[in-house]
Amino acid sequence: MKIIEARGAPNPRRVRIFAAEKGLDIPCEGIDLMAGEHRSDWFEKLNPYGGVPVLVLDDGEALSETVAICRYLEALTPEPALFGREPLEAARIEMWNRRMEFSLFWPVANVFRHTNPRMAALESPQIPEWADVNRERAGRGLRLLNDQLVQSDYVAGGTFTIADITAFVAVGFMKPARMALPEGLGHLARWYDAVKARESVAQAGI
Amino acid sequence: MKIIEARGAPNPRRVRIFAAEKGLDIPCEGIDLMAGEHRSDWFEKLNPYGGVPVLVLDDGEALSETVAICRYLEALTPEPALFGREPLEAARIEMWNRRMEFSLFWPVANVFRHTNPRMAALESPQIPEWADVNRERAGRGLRLLNDQLVQSDYVAGGTFTIADITAFVAVGFMKPARMALPEGLGHLARWYDAVKARESVAQAGI
Repeated sequence: MKIIEARGAPNPRRVRIFAAEKGLDIPCEGIDLMAGEHRSDWFEKLNPYGGVPVLVLDDGEALSETVAICRYLEALTPEPALFGREPLEAARIEMWNRRMEFSLFWPVANVFRHTNPRMAALESPQIPEWADVNRERAGRGLRLLNDQLVQSDYVAGGTFTIADITAFVAVGFMKPARMALPEGLGHLARWYDAVKARESVAQAGI
Repeated sequence: MKIIEARGAPNPRRVRIFAAEKGLDIPCEGIDLMAGEHRSDWFEKLNPYGGVPVLVLDDGEALSETVAICRYLEALTPEPALFGREPLEAARIEMWNRRMEFSLFWPVANVFRHTNPRMAALESPQIPEWADVNRERAGRGLRLLNDQLVQSDYVAGGTFTIADITAFVAVGFMKPARMALPEGLGHLARWYDAVKARESVAQAGI
């Protein structure tokens, strides 16, 4: 197995943290998004949808989509369980992971893509008004996440799950998106520091 | 159990088709999105993120996010398996379901929300330029889906899965979004007609 990815991009980082939590050391190979390598013939054969990361299996089959890759790694290495075990627990984690994607991860990514001058080649046209909408959505998402963290240590309850990885990478990506954390979100700050201190985060890098 | 939802909205329709495939008859209760009922106090207690559908369990716990609800129903009623069984099969279905969401479902929803005058109250500001970007993305998504359907009967392979439900509801939602199906996508048209003829689709309604 190997992972084809791009450093600095948030989705590959989610997979690297996930793999590190599992104790997996999968070789990573970078491609250059700015040079359009994800639109090259060889890459489009692996993933016609053009996104990274891609997990290439030993027989050559390519799995793309961050959460699909993570689910596959969870099936191969069930512990620690980051998608839950029992039906209701698994459904709650799926719910929170998607809430983190829709209320935080994609809004922050949209702010980045529609405001950063380096993104002009990948996101055309850049629409500043759409960045503004997403900046406001991300702000609301951060407040809702803080509300949740009043009552639970981690995003989806008492244990660390994929929903924490999604939210953590989204909050970390606010820096390149030039977004500041709103004041007064103490529970979020406590949770962020706790996740940041995990060994998997250091292993995965930025 | 009951489902709180809104007729005409695409995400509740995904859940209704999914439940019908499973032979489940779960009572549905509608709310009025145009009147802002999803922002009312009682609804925000069920889902602070404000979206429909919500599955309310017998003990009062509320599960939101379409795919989380579907996964829970799959765990309660495993057959027919719409998320796959074996690890690799499940990962492929997750991959295709997300491809259908990101390349088709959300682009079509964005065209609808940013162009339909009735959506002005829910999507503010409406950004016509963002609708244009999404119209183009959906067009590309349809062509990629047609390419996939050259080699397989259903979106994620030889059997009907949640990825077909997501793609089918997205294509059906092109009509209210005032988008026409591009010419020459014969495989997509064959697949669409086959899914449309399923009993679950008739049972679920629009």
